[in-house]
Amino acid sequence: MTQDLPPGADAIGRIMGKTADEAFATLSDMYGPDMAMEVMNIGHIWERPGLTRRERSFVAIAALVAMGTKDRLRIHLQGALNHGATREEIEEVILTMMIYAGHARATEAIEVARDVFGT
Amino acid sequence: MTQDLPPGADAIGRIMGKTADEAFATLSDMYGPDMAMEVMNIGHIWERPGLTRRERSFVAIAALVAMGTKDRLRIHLQGALNHGATREEIEEVILTMMIYAGHARATEAIEVARDVFGT
Amino acid sequence: MTQDLPPGADAIGRIMGKTADEAFATLSDMYGPDMAMEVMNIGHIWERPGLTRRERSFVAIAALVAMGTKDRLRIHLQGALNHGATREEIEEVILTMMIYAGHARATEAIEVARDVFGT
Amino acid sequence: MTQDLPPGADAIGRIMGKTADEAFATLSDMYGPDMAMEVMNIGHIWERPGLTRRERSFVAIAALVAMGTKDRLRIHLQGALNHGATREEIEEVILTMMIYAGHARATEAIEVARDVFGT
Amino acid sequence: MTQDLPPGADAIGRIMGKTADEAFATLSDMYGPDMAMEVMNIGHIWERPGLTRRERSFVAIAALVAMGTKDRLRIHLQGALNHGATREEIEEVILTMMIYAGHARATEAIEVARDVFGT
Amino acid sequence: MTQDLPPGADAIGRIMGKTADEAFATLSDMYGPDMAMEVMNIGHIWERPGLTRRERSFVAIAALVAMGTKDRLRIHLQGALNHGATREEIEEVILTMMIYAGHARATEAIEVARDVFGT
Repeated sequence: MTQDLPPGADAIGRIMGKTADEAFATLSDMYGPDMAMEVMNIGHIWERPGLTRRERSFVAIAALVAMGTKDRLRIHLQGALNHGATREEIEEVILTMMIYAGHARATEAIEVARDVFGT
Repeated sequence: MTQDLPPGADAIGRIMGKTADEAFATLSDMYGPDMAMEVMNIGHIWERPGLTRRERSFVAIAALVAMGTKDRLRIHLQGALNHGATREEIEEVILTMMIYAGHARATEAIEVARDVFGT
Repeated sequence: MTQDLPPGADAIGRIMGKTADEAFATLSDMYGPDMAMEVMNIGHIWERPGLTRRERSFVAIAALVAMGTKDRLRIHLQGALNHGATREEIEEVILTMMIYAGHARATEAIEVARDVFGT
Repeated sequence: MTQDLPPGADAIGRIMGKTADEAFATLSDMYGPDMAMEVMNIGHIWERPGLTRRERSFVAIAALVAMGTKDRLRIHLQGALNHGATREEIEEVILTMMIYAGHARATEAIEVARDVFGT
Repeated sequence: MTQDLPPGADAIGRIMGKTADEAFATLSDMYGPDMAMEVMNIGHIWERPGLTRRERSFVAIAALVAMGTKDRLRIHLQGALNHGATREEIEEVILTMMIYAGHARATEAIEVARDVFGT
Repeated sequence: MTQDLPPGADAIGRIMGKTADEAFATLSDMYGPDMAMEVMNIGHIWERPGLTRRERSFVAIAALVAMGTKDRLRIHLQGALNHGATREEIEEVILTMMIYAGHARATEAIEVARDVFGT
């Protein structure tokens, strides 16, 4: 891997349970290299102080549930586990979305979570 | 106040920095009594274990930013402070939404937050 | 008024409590004539059989609440009254949106409704 | 079934063409028991006066189309039939969403409806 | 085909790489004839001056990415090619959506595009 | 101004009709310096080849209309003019959104545009 990765690339790797180089290779296969690099560019936000990685995973999941982007939710559900969150906590985030994003978004998301978690 | 409030009504009061009765009275003025009571019915979700109030405030704010419901966001920004979050943490939640909800949702929300926080 | 209006223009007028010509003139002032004419072109859907005007107002309001388009909601709240719905029925549609669109969309919409209805 | 179900649980059953106990069991399998119980808690809104069940189905479907939650839409399409709506009326609700939610949301939803209805 | 098609029906055909009659037949199979006719009614907007077809494809794609309507996106990705856009330009539109619609909408859309384009 | 700005900061300035330093100062007043810097970080996407600035403005506007972020739309309407688009072209982008984002999003946006353009 000769591509120079930006500051924060490690954070994207950590979400995916990979090294930064492995993450970039996987995302390049999924999205092409330009979009993959833009995702790596996001990583620096995950390295900011102020929230723990676990907390930032919670807010990322809340947003993905509210928007209904279920494919990307799968990655961040695994990422939250990688950041030390428990299944129970993650399901609690999704359940809370019943209030804010409506019961349809929340229940569609819990089905994704149960599929990812194998429950 | 003779209206019987449901379990969890205290949680709605706590978000608003009021007693449950005061919260119901305020929401009744804003929404009418039926909708206000439905909001009180939500409160039990805020009393569930699994997430701290401060964490649940973070995910509520993430959802409200992602949906662009800026008037309701104002209440929950204050609620997060009431739950022990700092302004810096709340602004960090909103900044993270640049990734997930787009820069327009995030920057419109930070303007609301800065107005609420008086910064 | 020399502009030829499309079939269904009367339906737009009826929502606004105006004649078709008056509605087109008002919308032209608001949106310019091209967009106003596109709105008149929508009218034929309101003239379709299968739902009453009152029922179609209910589903229009449900959609506008779910999308959070509060300025356009104002027009359709008045339109629902013009189609024979009662304030109580309209508020019931909005309250039902707590389930499907989340409490923030629903409560922001009920505030709009109470402003339009003068309650 | 020893779990106590809340007032309104029958309404959730009715949407699903089941008893309340059967509905809770099915939803528990889909979402886990906590989320399933929160769905049962929604049922009381379906029991409110002011709209018929058929009308409330129409506004639920309108919201689900506007939000693009197609999996949950499937359940409510069947629910609307269970509440006495006809296929023609339901398709008319979806067609009306072309105006308010855009042609992409409406046409994606009509494909779901035609799949559910077997047309 | 004896059905009279509205002005602009050719534009819908052009998006789909078909004649207007073929497009109406295909859409009738997908959506039923009433919804298909409403789609044909949209065609006149595609015939308006002010933007090239290629430019209008770009803004249609931007909207579909922002809304997350991935099935309809497939048709318009092909439509943009039919209107003379290149794959590189279309992918650039989607990449730009990372800023405005969030990285989840953009990356889910690029996966659809790469599937359509066979890359 | 001693703050180092990232590659692409000029692009943000150009949207706002300012130098990069002036743009950063203005956005810092609006959003605080951290969020302002994240907006500057977006600028490099505006400098990518593949689309003209005018075309990228069109797709940005399409997305902002589809999402209903009207405050941020104001900035990009002016940005599109700064990128050489005409009012007629911009209004045509918004009118096209009637199809994809629904008439409510489109008509609310055209009101914003007419206010910005002084028409």
